Amino acid sequence: MTQLQRLAIAPNQLQNSQIILTPQQLHYLNRVLRLQAGDRFIAMNGQGQWWLAKLEGEQAEILEPIAVQTELPINVTLVVALPKGNGFDEVVRQATELGVSSLVPTISDRTLLKPSPQKLDRWRRIATEAAEQSERQIVPTILEPLPFTTALALYQAHHQYICVERGHHPHLLNCLTHTPQRAVTVATGPEGGWTEAEIETACAASFQPVSLGRRILTAVLAPIVALSLVAAAAEMGKMNNEAKM
Amino acid sequence: MTQLQRLAIAPNQLQNSQIILTPQQLHYLNRVLRLQAGDRFIAMNGQGQWWLAKLEGEQAEILEPIAVQTELPINVTLVVALPKGNGFDEVVRQATELGVSSLVPTISDRTLLKPSPQKLDRWRRIATEAAEQSERQIVPTILEPLPFTTALALYQAHHQYICVERGHHPHLLNCLTHTPQRAVTVATGPEGGWTEAEIETACAASFQPVSLGRRILTAVLAPIVALSLVAAAAEMGKMNNEAKM
Repeated sequence: MTQLQRLAIAPNQLQNSQIILTPQQLHYLNRVLRLQAGDRFIAMNGQGQWWLAKLEGEQAEILEPIAVQTELPINVTLVVALPKGNGFDEVVRQATELGVSSLVPTISDRTLLKPSPQKLDRWRRIATEAAEQSERQIVPTILEPLPFTTALALYQAHHQYICVERGHHPHLLNCLTHTPQRAVTVATGPEGGWTEAEIETACAASFQPVSLGRRILTAVLAPIVALSLVAAAAEMGKMNNEAKM
Repeated sequence: MTQLQRLAIAPNQLQNSQIILTPQQLHYLNRVLRLQAGDRFIAMNGQGQWWLAKLEGEQAEILEPIAVQTELPINVTLVVALPKGNGFDEVVRQATELGVSSLVPTISDRTLLKPSPQKLDRWRRIATEAAEQSERQIVPTILEPLPFTTALALYQAHHQYICVERGHHPHLLNCLTHTPQRAVTVATGPEGGWTEAEIETACAASFQPVSLGRRILTAVLAPIVALSLVAAAAEMGKMNNEAKM
């Protein structure tokens, strides 16, 4: 099943058991993937539903739903101080592969980048592509860039951590494995780190300061490391049970 | 102390308590960093030793050794099937930031890239730069690309894992937290994954197949996720004790 090609469709393209394909999708299926009438592929609506579909001219017929579960068992929101240059493109791509639910790009005191409005479209396209490639069922939500203090107030979760690069803080993994997590929000800083004032504001908003290790990580790598740990802590029990089956 | 600029030096540049600087290093210190005679910086020999040094014309004087510990408490070797394009550059950079000891680029059955000899020099330069930026004491070793089966035989450790993307295997983090680790070797695959034969060979060489989660990760991201977990599992006890001090 997983050898079949996958196509992301908008929910409104589905009418009864037919998928009305756009010209771009037809080009992709016919010219890029070289599918012909009668060939099968996987249609994904970006909201967790997958179907086995069969190409028929300018439409496709839904054959059956596919039961898959590639999503993390918990909601994870990353609040990421925008790295310089195009660094956030990489964060979007890799965080999507790792199962993030929502990404909140934020402007911190030491953020150099002032993103253009076109950036948001670009990030959302990257997230859609990465969700397809990593076989996710859901395309993560990418919010408009917000000032850090606004993001702190808006994205409250059951467990909230702010990654701080110097000083003696407990390791994020230690917090994750000692407390069962439901929804998690993790904030990671910009080049040069958070200011003292930002860390204090986050603590006042019930974010716990944590460490990602003794070395200094770049603003692009820090959110990926934090998410790797949250995802692994959430999945490890579940996968181990399956491995025993 | 950590606000001071850092400079990597070769061990043979140190003579008595003087550092004989190269023209490139003098240019960097004088022109790029704008240091003047009498200004202090941190000299690192790439083998775990740091010194506070003072610039004096074309030499620098060692003032005192600096006690630092930014290295992982265990040796970690990553055996990485070479990703396509320049993907391994990113693996070298990020794995160095995360504290890897040795990187073994390997040619697997599905590896498309045949690296040129210049690549190795480039990877070593990237590792040196990333070690400086992340404040590591050691520059990781990067081996010449080897066939996968040769790498398996050469890089045996106390604990050895091969990351496999489909099928029911226990999560890597589960293995790490249930067994105290000393030296760890982790192998991650190419685009398209390992072949069945490669996984069998690895198992015969005492590599345990593990999962990095339910989603399909790219060949660039997989080694970074694996290393994030190994590093965090190795450091979390240690950092938590410090946080209590």
